[in-house]
Amino acid sequence: MSTVNRTRLVRTATAGVFLGVLVFGALVAATPMPRSVAAATGKQVSPLPKPQYSDDGQMLRPDKSYRRWIQVGTPLTPNELNLPAAPFPEFHSVYVHPDDFDHYAETGEWRDGTYIVKELITIGAKSASSGNGYFMGDFTGLEVAVKDSRRFPDEPGYWAYFSFGHEYPLADAASIQPSTQCNVCHASNAKDDWVFTQYYPVARDAAPGGGR
Amino acid sequence: MSTVNRTRLVRTATAGVFLGVLVFGALVAATPMPRSVAAATGKQVSPLPKPQYSDDGQMLRPDKSYRRWIQVGTPLTPNELNLPAAPFPEFHSVYVHPDDFDHYAETGEWRDGTYIVKELITIGAKSASSGNGYFMGDFTGLEVAVKDSRRFPDEPGYWAYFSFGHEYPLADAASIQPSTQCNVCHASNAKDDWVFTQYYPVARDAAPGGGR
Repeated sequence: MSTVNRTRLVRTATAGVFLGVLVFGALVAATPMPRSVAAATGKQVSPLPKPQYSDDGQMLRPDKSYRRWIQVGTPLTPNELNLPAAPFPEFHSVYVHPDDFDHYAETGEWRDGTYIVKELITIGAKSASSGNGYFMGDFTGLEVAVKDSRRFPDEPGYWAYFSFGHEYPLADAASIQPSTQCNVCHASNAKDDWVFTQYYPVARDAAPGGGR
Repeated sequence: MSTVNRTRLVRTATAGVFLGVLVFGALVAATPMPRSVAAATGKQVSPLPKPQYSDDGQMLRPDKSYRRWIQVGTPLTPNELNLPAAPFPEFHSVYVHPDDFDHYAETGEWRDGTYIVKELITIGAKSASSGNGYFMGDFTGLEVAVKDSRRFPDEPGYWAYFSFGHEYPLADAASIQPSTQCNVCHASNAKDDWVFTQYYPVARDAAPGGGR
């Protein structure tokens, strides 16, 4: 092959690759990208809820829509292993508000405003066809953690904690827990900014570099 | 240019396009598909993913977007309580496709097409500041259940089961499990149409009349 022909061939082959790139680039561009929950879950048609407070500063119990948020992990502390009773009975389903989860997935930071719900569930059975272990029973408690520097400027890390009870019926509203109660434990033991990511594989796996 | 050279050029250019197609096809395949969760907000605006199959009928491993579906419950079968090893190690995070969950919440029926993912997670710790128990470690396995009367007319209840493995790296594709393997156990022990709703409080609580 002559040098000229070789050059043409290379140019044409390059153009071929470029065409392929263009065609599939257009296809990719036409596909909505799921980089955020808005994309991953489709455009939101209404804003997701944020914490609601009464005039005297109590947090109002959130509606159950948190069960559609991102479930990042499920610790289990059986009462029988924490006699006379576990501090939090017993399964802890931990949900992060999707907008805050998206921000964490993008940046590795729990942003100001982060809204986390912990729902407590009893152990309902200890053996099933899949083996011996622990199987969820019924809902029994609900707690919330919020990072909010404006509303809680004096809380360490700006994290505030609320409990709507560990037995049904749950309270309709809850006052902030003393810092010495929940906050200090999170501050001392949580891996990433008051959040126990060491037990939340869904959060770790989504975060840049596998999270902290 | 000689005929030979022209032929070579065309072949090379074609290969170039083909390469471009391959590269961007791979990118497209690696991109989680967009979906629309009713999330906390209600209306869906784009279709959620459905199971994908190869030409020879294998199910392709779903992308991780199922972690944004509805998490209905989290059974736990520790290896240590099922020596030498649990059939499913160890936490089982069970996700239902949001469209199918919505239908179940409205009607109490697991509709044709229902798509359920079970992600398996190791126990990472057995004590933490919240007490003794079980805390999630790392992802270790992935399984899928699908109810599809058209694709699986001969499976009992039309339910088909797939396993992408219990150790990483997971398989990219999986053949249907024999009916005698998964299906028979679900048929005999699951509370509501091959689904273990007795261990899924999020599903029960959403269903009309508290589910079955």
